[in-house]
Amino acid sequence: MPEIQYWFEDFTPGRAFHHVSRKITSDEIVQFAREFDPQPFHLSEEAGKASILGGLAASGWHTCSIAMRQFFDTILQFSAGEGSPGVDFVEWRKPVLAGDALGGAITVLESRPLKSRPGLGMVRLRHETTNQRGELVMAMEHPFMVRMRHGVAA
Amino acid sequence: MPEIQYWFEDFTPGRAFHHVSRKITSDEIVQFAREFDPQPFHLSEEAGKASILGGLAASGWHTCSIAMRQFFDTILQFSAGEGSPGVDFVEWRKPVLAGDALGGAITVLESRPLKSRPGLGMVRLRHETTNQRGELVMAMEHPFMVRMRHGVAA
Repeated sequence: MPEIQYWFEDFTPGRAFHHVSRKITSDEIVQFAREFDPQPFHLSEEAGKASILGGLAASGWHTCSIAMRQFFDTILQFSAGEGSPGVDFVEWRKPVLAGDALGGAITVLESRPLKSRPGLGMVRLRHETTNQRGELVMAMEHPFMVRMRHGVAA
Repeated sequence: MPEIQYWFEDFTPGRAFHHVSRKITSDEIVQFAREFDPQPFHLSEEAGKASILGGLAASGWHTCSIAMRQFFDTILQFSAGEGSPGVDFVEWRKPVLAGDALGGAITVLESRPLKSRPGLGMVRLRHETTNQRGELVMAMEHPFMVRMRHGVAA
């Protein structure tokens, strides 16, 4: 893992971390769906077109997993992160179709020191995944525990 | 898709659908992590053992994706489902380690007809993923839209 740049103190409410956009291919969509979510509209363009989704569409869990990777690339690998106990919510707002380019950002909603764990803080992050037209395709929020720069002594 | 067995009327509050248990291998864990969540404890037994997780551990999103597949196998492929707009919450309670056998059940929490969409109802489902020791490793809840057996005329 690279050198730590982001400690608890760096997650100031309102700060936004922007992702590099990433194209999702039909091969990726089908491969993920075969393993985890084999509904017809995740497996073929034809079935996708015949559905309300309008084309070969990624599983919602695939979009979550890509958002996880973008979180890793943008923040996590550079952070003093101590993990996340879960997710507050996920909203799948629009279909993610083969060929879409997924970008977006993670915004810090709040941050507070953990009284029970000196040297550690909890931040709450909001992920917004957008497509090449700037449309919001997914939103999710989750807590994230991060060590403080100066540890217990701070 | 197989013939429909589960319509809105079949999702009665309290009803539980039990999963067939599924073993998760170290190869699967590493493959998922390389693509979506390359934190060291998801990539090697050694790094997992050195972490608080205690061994090579699956990404939380991998566990969610396996729960999706179990939902498909147990319910979705046999249902008149019309999709899900999102997830209410996910809780990752305990590490999922290489070699664990994941089972569990989905329980119907509530069900109500959608006034705005005649012939369609909304059910809320709770997924509990357990390991071979019966420990709860993940819980999540989400809405699920399902068509009524007798459609609009009901």
